[in-house]
Amino acid sequence: MMKNYAAVLYGPKDLRVEKWPMPEINDKEVLIEIDCVGICGTDIKLYSSGKCGLEEFTEPVVLGHEGAGVVIKVGSEVTNLAVGDRVAIEPTQPCRGCEYCKQGRYNLCDQPRYCSTTTGPGNMCRYYKHVADFCHKIPDNLSMEEGAAMQPLAIAIHACNRAGVRLGCTMVILGAGPIGVLCAMTARAMGATKILITDVVESRLKIAKKLAVDHTLHVSPEQSDQEIAEKVLNTLGTTPNITIDACGFESAQRIALKMTRTGGTVLVVGIGPESVKVPLTGALLREVDVRGAYRLLNTYPLALAAVSSGTIDLKSFITHHFPLEKSKEAIEFAKKGEAMKIIIHVTKKS
Amino acid sequence: MMKNYAAVLYGPKDLRVEKWPMPEINDKEVLIEIDCVGICGTDIKLYSSGKCGLEEFTEPVVLGHEGAGVVIKVGSEVTNLAVGDRVAIEPTQPCRGCEYCKQGRYNLCDQPRYCSTTTGPGNMCRYYKHVADFCHKIPDNLSMEEGAAMQPLAIAIHACNRAGVRLGCTMVILGAGPIGVLCAMTARAMGATKILITDVVESRLKIAKKLAVDHTLHVSPEQSDQEIAEKVLNTLGTTPNITIDACGFESAQRIALKMTRTGGTVLVVGIGPESVKVPLTGALLREVDVRGAYRLLNTYPLALAAVSSGTIDLKSFITHHFPLEKSKEAIEFAKKGEAMKIIIHVTKKS
Amino acid sequence: MMKNYAAVLYGPKDLRVEKWPMPEINDKEVLIEIDCVGICGTDIKLYSSGKCGLEEFTEPVVLGHEGAGVVIKVGSEVTNLAVGDRVAIEPTQPCRGCEYCKQGRYNLCDQPRYCSTTTGPGNMCRYYKHVADFCHKIPDNLSMEEGAAMQPLAIAIHACNRAGVRLGCTMVILGAGPIGVLCAMTARAMGATKILITDVVESRLKIAKKLAVDHTLHVSPEQSDQEIAEKVLNTLGTTPNITIDACGFESAQRIALKMTRTGGTVLVVGIGPESVKVPLTGALLREVDVRGAYRLLNTYPLALAAVSSGTIDLKSFITHHFPLEKSKEAIEFAKKGEAMKIIIHVTKKS
Amino acid sequence: MMKNYAAVLYGPKDLRVEKWPMPEINDKEVLIEIDCVGICGTDIKLYSSGKCGLEEFTEPVVLGHEGAGVVIKVGSEVTNLAVGDRVAIEPTQPCRGCEYCKQGRYNLCDQPRYCSTTTGPGNMCRYYKHVADFCHKIPDNLSMEEGAAMQPLAIAIHACNRAGVRLGCTMVILGAGPIGVLCAMTARAMGATKILITDVVESRLKIAKKLAVDHTLHVSPEQSDQEIAEKVLNTLGTTPNITIDACGFESAQRIALKMTRTGGTVLVVGIGPESVKVPLTGALLREVDVRGAYRLLNTYPLALAAVSSGTIDLKSFITHHFPLEKSKEAIEFAKKGEAMKIIIHVTKKS
Repeated sequence: MMKNYAAVLYGPKDLRVEKWPMPEINDKEVLIEIDCVGICGTDIKLYSSGKCGLEEFTEPVVLGHEGAGVVIKVGSEVTNLAVGDRVAIEPTQPCRGCEYCKQGRYNLCDQPRYCSTTTGPGNMCRYYKHVADFCHKIPDNLSMEEGAAMQPLAIAIHACNRAGVRLGCTMVILGAGPIGVLCAMTARAMGATKILITDVVESRLKIAKKLAVDHTLHVSPEQSDQEIAEKVLNTLGTTPNITIDACGFESAQRIALKMTRTGGTVLVVGIGPESVKVPLTGALLREVDVRGAYRLLNTYPLALAAVSSGTIDLKSFITHHFPLEKSKEAIEFAKKGEAMKIIIHVTKKS
Repeated sequence: MMKNYAAVLYGPKDLRVEKWPMPEINDKEVLIEIDCVGICGTDIKLYSSGKCGLEEFTEPVVLGHEGAGVVIKVGSEVTNLAVGDRVAIEPTQPCRGCEYCKQGRYNLCDQPRYCSTTTGPGNMCRYYKHVADFCHKIPDNLSMEEGAAMQPLAIAIHACNRAGVRLGCTMVILGAGPIGVLCAMTARAMGATKILITDVVESRLKIAKKLAVDHTLHVSPEQSDQEIAEKVLNTLGTTPNITIDACGFESAQRIALKMTRTGGTVLVVGIGPESVKVPLTGALLREVDVRGAYRLLNTYPLALAAVSSGTIDLKSFITHHFPLEKSKEAIEFAKKGEAMKIIIHVTKKS
Repeated sequence: MMKNYAAVLYGPKDLRVEKWPMPEINDKEVLIEIDCVGICGTDIKLYSSGKCGLEEFTEPVVLGHEGAGVVIKVGSEVTNLAVGDRVAIEPTQPCRGCEYCKQGRYNLCDQPRYCSTTTGPGNMCRYYKHVADFCHKIPDNLSMEEGAAMQPLAIAIHACNRAGVRLGCTMVILGAGPIGVLCAMTARAMGATKILITDVVESRLKIAKKLAVDHTLHVSPEQSDQEIAEKVLNTLGTTPNITIDACGFESAQRIALKMTRTGGTVLVVGIGPESVKVPLTGALLREVDVRGAYRLLNTYPLALAAVSSGTIDLKSFITHHFPLEKSKEAIEFAKKGEAMKIIIHVTKKS
Repeated sequence: MMKNYAAVLYGPKDLRVEKWPMPEINDKEVLIEIDCVGICGTDIKLYSSGKCGLEEFTEPVVLGHEGAGVVIKVGSEVTNLAVGDRVAIEPTQPCRGCEYCKQGRYNLCDQPRYCSTTTGPGNMCRYYKHVADFCHKIPDNLSMEEGAAMQPLAIAIHACNRAGVRLGCTMVILGAGPIGVLCAMTARAMGATKILITDVVESRLKIAKKLAVDHTLHVSPEQSDQEIAEKVLNTLGTTPNITIDACGFESAQRIALKMTRTGGTVLVVGIGPESVKVPLTGALLREVDVRGAYRLLNTYPLALAAVSSGTIDLKSFITHHFPLEKSKEAIEFAKKGEAMKIIIHVTKKS
């Protein structure tokens, strides 16, 4: 009989790899033997604070929402998958009945079940169940690690969709963490012709430069908004059609609002401070649209097609690997901000 | 020989009705004998401060950008108008060559000539020249006053276009000044089915109620954001798809961001404080789009069609009349905030 | 114990009102005591041909897909409805898992259950079950008949959404049957300022004129395309931004393609001949978009809001009433084309 | 003193390289010494028939609308260009005052001046004048030939914009002529992940395969629509989101309408037969949008950015070169359909 185990968070920094109940699937679900799971900024926040946004967990929670694995059992009504299929797991199960689900905005669903929140467990575990139509077959030419990395790529594609990236765009991305860099890679794949990315960490800029951007700019917290904006525009030689805030700092939002081209878009992905002091009026008078991107929406199929076709290459994006037993070390390492994408291997890495 | 005169602003509160040079038209322009001109919030600001946004005038400027009159002379290349035509004057002349003009966003033109700014005189005068294709024929069933009031209506239609108003929308409009009320009337014409408007002045709410809205809410500066938001939502019975800030207060933007429905839009029309402290993150995480509307764009034809067809009725919207000689008194009266639309009559009102 | 009965179609013109099995609801469904059901063109086609599009029925089918009634039982997971609620029934149950459902285009669902097709029974019966979230509460100020008529209105709103109707549009609608007339009413509610409708039946034009349009044009099959197009344009005084083909004739499509304004839209609602000979190239070179509207999509809530708020008035649209026992007579009468909307009353009309 | 000469068409197949009047520029124009000019299908049609669409020329006309050259004189109001600038010439001058120009759809302008039509001469000549803001600076890293080829690329980008190409699209392009191949290259740059192209000429398919597409399919006029559609879908393994008809055959439109995915788009670029017999109804019922693309719209800047940044590589797309004296031979050669892009060199090729 199969036994399950998982990386379970009991409180701030209290992450334990231990036995975990075996999930039972219903008619529309599949059981998945997890191969590997990516670590993301949310995992770091969860691990550090023991909280999920505003909510506190009342029970221990399994981490992980960037999972890939092999289907080992399928529910009786499942038609899109078979035992043996390798799948990338879209970490949500929307209600499908609210106005948002019906309007094709299921990322805004009133009552979703989302991995590693109070509404559902994560997939940093041996066996995991999920509703079948949110499990996406991984094409044969992709690795399991790439399957796991589809999740942040799908986030980035949603962000670029919301930003309206198009052929010929000039873009600035503030923040060269995994999401910022994937936004740059996605924007490039959508035809953006000039991309500048900023960060406070030099090593991230190097990876970004290698993967997707034309220009990098090292910034520091001591610099004024004005100073950073000027450097960006001087380097770029023009104003950006689109600025993506992928770092969540208040100053990034201020800079974005100031320097984005008249008629352009400021897109915020990720979570900033609750209240910000920003020059909103000036941007709105120039009809700069300010938009957010929340989670992901119908972008797994696009992400898989983009990587499978070679349009986007995730290989260099994945930089570090840890076994499940060392997931605590992995997250501690991730906190340093030097890695791009860290993969936790539940099944031993071949 | 015809002599011209105009309401000329020499500095704060220094408005003089005096002789003014007769304009000479070029091949693409028409000469217009002005019938009447509406007064708008910008006129009040100009009159009070002697400034135009950030710029100071270096020379006296003719007020007025809501003009209507009769064509009395046409340039040699003009084909759309003839002597005797009654026209509503769209108060701009974009460059037609910049990226915005070519993309159909001439309101964002790099180098427009706009009435009553440092780039061009206003039309609160006897004779005024304008490029012919920005003069729109007034249909026979409309009065000159209605022709003048097309300008703020065209502003409101642009705002509602940018807000994405559609059949079945629930809306909140913050501010029941002329633009707020015209936004309500336009939204109604576009199919909004539930509209609530707020203001600090009771008399404006009465007019708004009569003209276009389902619910009014009298607010006061002493009330907290939370208190106002709750009252709005209680009265409405739901959250609005769209909130229009038509008052320019920082608190209005905060309330709008908080209470607009997930996936909806906050539209700001008009000029608020340069920097604002607002709960932007929460709104962006719920994918509430934040957009501004600047001036107007291709909306004169729509405004004329809407009023001519009876879809929008401006008659009750026009509340007060003054002759040109009393333009100073008119503006002083407008400052009180009790009037809805005040019309200055250059030609004696028949 | 409750007994069910229904209007069951056994073959061409073989419609029998007879006993029918009582439906059993599941956890997400509600049981509805039907009050009344509208008759639509599809019912006439079904009745006349015994076929549903390309498919033939292999079993008798209950007619009716424009139903309204009272909830008399709710499934254990239903939260949006309670016993006693009056509901308008959106006649579909999409799969919720295909790419179309996830993208908010559930009208294109791969495997929907739709009333009175081979995938599901209709609601011209005493008791009918339906998935709860596709049953919409009827506001207190609306009648059951209006509830039933929400279905064709929701079709018309979807058509106008797809056509991109906006404030100030000039429109031509070809065909003044129920859908054509509801398109006109909807377009008016969305701000269309000039609407012309054509038909071969004079009596329909009279109703259309009364309900929603500025101009009517009586056409006859003897007239050439050119002749009809010229008469339309002469009456209208301009070309239409949007032409809606609501009659399904090949000649209507030809006329629409020819006369729609450069940059405008031709929208086809309803089913025309499989293959048509049309001047497509000329329209496409003028960037006239050609679009179809299939069934309805998220438009029940809009329809209910529009009628409840008084934006659209369905009272005069409903012209005839029959009891369920006379449903055969009702359909035979509908075939004559003189009625606008016929309602079958399952519960005796009060 | 400078003398001008041009390739002038006097009638069908009567093309003469001869002296031509020297153009005089106005304040907003520049004088350009032409370097080279591409040949396009329209040139072949003009040359063969002596007609321009429905109009016949009443006077001899200079051919060429894909020109690039060096500015040698600038009008007094020109600010965007200086003597010595290398420019790609967007071959139009819209009126800037009609509803289309104001709405940012200047390609639909009521009264444009377009190269090599009855409204304006072409640029297959030594000296050519053009309005300055429709001359686009060629970046330093591009050749003059690439500058000339911007025109068909700008056409292709407009077509892909109208088609709504996005990341992850599956596409079929019918016709591997220059526009079809450039559409494929553009679609790839916009993120299309699977592209199949068809043609009757094998050599074109080879170039297409090398430049941009995943799959090629050789078709022949003997094949039935059904046969071709099946082969396309079998090769592709799925239905296309978008089908572009870039060949103008009636059968291509039929195939496109049949096989495009439900909810997708059929885009027609180029000119087909006036009237076509097509299965339109089936496509419209599946909400397949049918759209045309006419000329180009704001796509020169995008084309230049895309090629300059390396996103699109035109080098292998340009396959043949002729001097101006041999323009007749060049066009005769172009008629064979074996070349991709032929460049006529006015200035001797360096």
